[in-house]
Amino acid sequence: MATAPSAKLTPLLKDELDIVIPTIRNLDFLEMWRPFFEQYHLIIVQDGDPSKKIRVPDGFDYQLYNRNDVNRILGPKASCISFKDSACRCFGYLVSKKKYIFTIDDDCFVAKDPSGKEINALEQHIKNLLTPSTTHFFNTLYDPYREGADFVRGYPFSLREGAPTAVSHGLWLNIPDYDAPTQLVKPLERNTRYVDAVMTVPKGTLFPMCGMNLAFDRELIGPAMYFGLMGDGQPIGRYDDMWAGWCMKVICDHLGLGVKTGLPYIWHSKASNPFVNLKKEYKGIFWQEKAIPFFQSVSLPKECSSVEKCHLALAGEVKSKLGEVDPYFIKLADAMVTWIEAWNMVNSPGEKPAMTSLPNATSKK
Amino acid sequence: MATAPSAKLTPLLKDELDIVIPTIRNLDFLEMWRPFFEQYHLIIVQDGDPSKKIRVPDGFDYQLYNRNDVNRILGPKASCISFKDSACRCFGYLVSKKKYIFTIDDDCFVAKDPSGKEINALEQHIKNLLTPSTTHFFNTLYDPYREGADFVRGYPFSLREGAPTAVSHGLWLNIPDYDAPTQLVKPLERNTRYVDAVMTVPKGTLFPMCGMNLAFDRELIGPAMYFGLMGDGQPIGRYDDMWAGWCMKVICDHLGLGVKTGLPYIWHSKASNPFVNLKKEYKGIFWQEKAIPFFQSVSLPKECSSVEKCHLALAGEVKSKLGEVDPYFIKLADAMVTWIEAWNMVNSPGEKPAMTSLPNATSKK
Repeated sequence: MATAPSAKLTPLLKDELDIVIPTIRNLDFLEMWRPFFEQYHLIIVQDGDPSKKIRVPDGFDYQLYNRNDVNRILGPKASCISFKDSACRCFGYLVSKKKYIFTIDDDCFVAKDPSGKEINALEQHIKNLLTPSTTHFFNTLYDPYREGADFVRGYPFSLREGAPTAVSHGLWLNIPDYDAPTQLVKPLERNTRYVDAVMTVPKGTLFPMCGMNLAFDRELIGPAMYFGLMGDGQPIGRYDDMWAGWCMKVICDHLGLGVKTGLPYIWHSKASNPFVNLKKEYKGIFWQEKAIPFFQSVSLPKECSSVEKCHLALAGEVKSKLGEVDPYFIKLADAMVTWIEAWNMVNSPGEKPAMTSLPNATSKK
Repeated sequence: MATAPSAKLTPLLKDELDIVIPTIRNLDFLEMWRPFFEQYHLIIVQDGDPSKKIRVPDGFDYQLYNRNDVNRILGPKASCISFKDSACRCFGYLVSKKKYIFTIDDDCFVAKDPSGKEINALEQHIKNLLTPSTTHFFNTLYDPYREGADFVRGYPFSLREGAPTAVSHGLWLNIPDYDAPTQLVKPLERNTRYVDAVMTVPKGTLFPMCGMNLAFDRELIGPAMYFGLMGDGQPIGRYDDMWAGWCMKVICDHLGLGVKTGLPYIWHSKASNPFVNLKKEYKGIFWQEKAIPFFQSVSLPKECSSVEKCHLALAGEVKSKLGEVDPYFIKLADAMVTWIEAWNMVNSPGEKPAMTSLPNATSKK
């Protein structure tokens, strides 16, 4: 049967995926994404002053949560959600009812592949998530589940089923995601290299997870995607996604889940101010030297059979091991516990129907 | 100062690198490589019948060793060098006096990058070897030492010096390096995807090392590059490079050395016969299911502070742990010990001068 020209094709996972966008400004950037996002539901988490009105282009189906909504929905547990920092995006993961999440920053635009074709980033993320990962053995021709590729000679057959993919980490053309010192040293560096690959971050290996262009299977790993305490009232910023990445990777390794990185690219339009960034990162740059060896060596008890249990066990380890580094980590560990409590509260089976029509949050369809 | 048109630029590491080629046929493939290889010294290891005359194109500086040379130079220790199998290439590593080795198969031709430019594979390998590896933490923008790239936000500063790179594993366009079952199932699959990346295989992760297009720092890792017992009189073939790769990676991880994979590509011209390959691989396909968990879990004692000591310790572990799988591994473990004895014999300081002018081996300059 021929499709009428005006009919839109239903995109992959249309009713099973939410797009989460943290923002402080009007979402004009969505215009460029319209062909790719229009049929999905958006969860917009408004950062900062809740009285400010955020404009969303017409035609998008969205729910917008501001700080008042966060406080109302979570009550005292709202303390685990950062304020004046894009870390607040994880609130969107918590209130979503979908199996998959794609999160993107509002300074990210549609990139083009080397042939000049616009890249449907979301579609590539979905492909990444719907195919397994190769966590236990490295495949030299990259993702063996991709068309035109396979496992190379010497790849054990018993490992070719791979592991379920929990996370798909996408990259950025143009402005690279550098820390403030590197930004200061290389203000003009741009990422122009399009690497046509998706690969698994092997088991036991940590990586710097950037939250700018990220998708995950919320059912598999959602409660681990806690972006920590950053921004207003906290001693650091710009480590929200890193923190989530370290926690998430340790938990994925423990539970046998896979993490992919590489395609898709988005076009990262604007470098943030390196001087402002340095102030935010300053302590994090020191602390990560302690935090990373901690995450490289931490091991979770066998009994931790769910993401929630893993995250709580990790919170305990953070408190006892990193608490010595700075009292901030004690506060962060407590917030990790609160986050899981909030997750369970909002996501307990009895709560589900009520949450699908959250009162008061700005909704438009 | 302008260079006269006829003057040749001296290529990188001209006097510090040998090109090792195992072969059973005339080396006409070198014609295509002439602009890139002509100024280097070649070590040709003639496989099979030593009475056969191998033709080498004019103008190349080479030394050719056949089985008679192997037997004469190593005496009884020649038993560790495979016969009628490209595994014999490791004899070339042993008799080289250079710091670096590049080894390539005689069915590999010059590939082109997406812009149509011929790829100087050797130059890229040298770049890979002369820059560090990121063994302890994954960099999402791939090799941070490459021009236009760097470490991304969240990469710990204390790890940015990286580790010395011991091995550079290059890839192949056109015929992919598949095992016999995959060849049989996908006879028409060709690798057309040029992935513009070099990356480190993280510490603790094994990979299938292919010997077709491979370079390494002989001083750092040479004695670990033993390609095992394959071919004539042995129960398996086509696992020579895999075996070396597993041993090498475990030793690099123990000694804090790096292994890179990715660029450069060569053009792999001809698929080998999958039926012949299946016969060669048959036992290996079973055995690798035991061998890989062994290599994933083996640990070398702290006292193993040199590659030779590591390889000997690994031989002991192979004998005791894999000897139960098949008596072949006991023979292989013994050959690993013989290999190190042969390496030490040929490479002991007193032997060096004698070896630079090995008598009888066919030499041409």
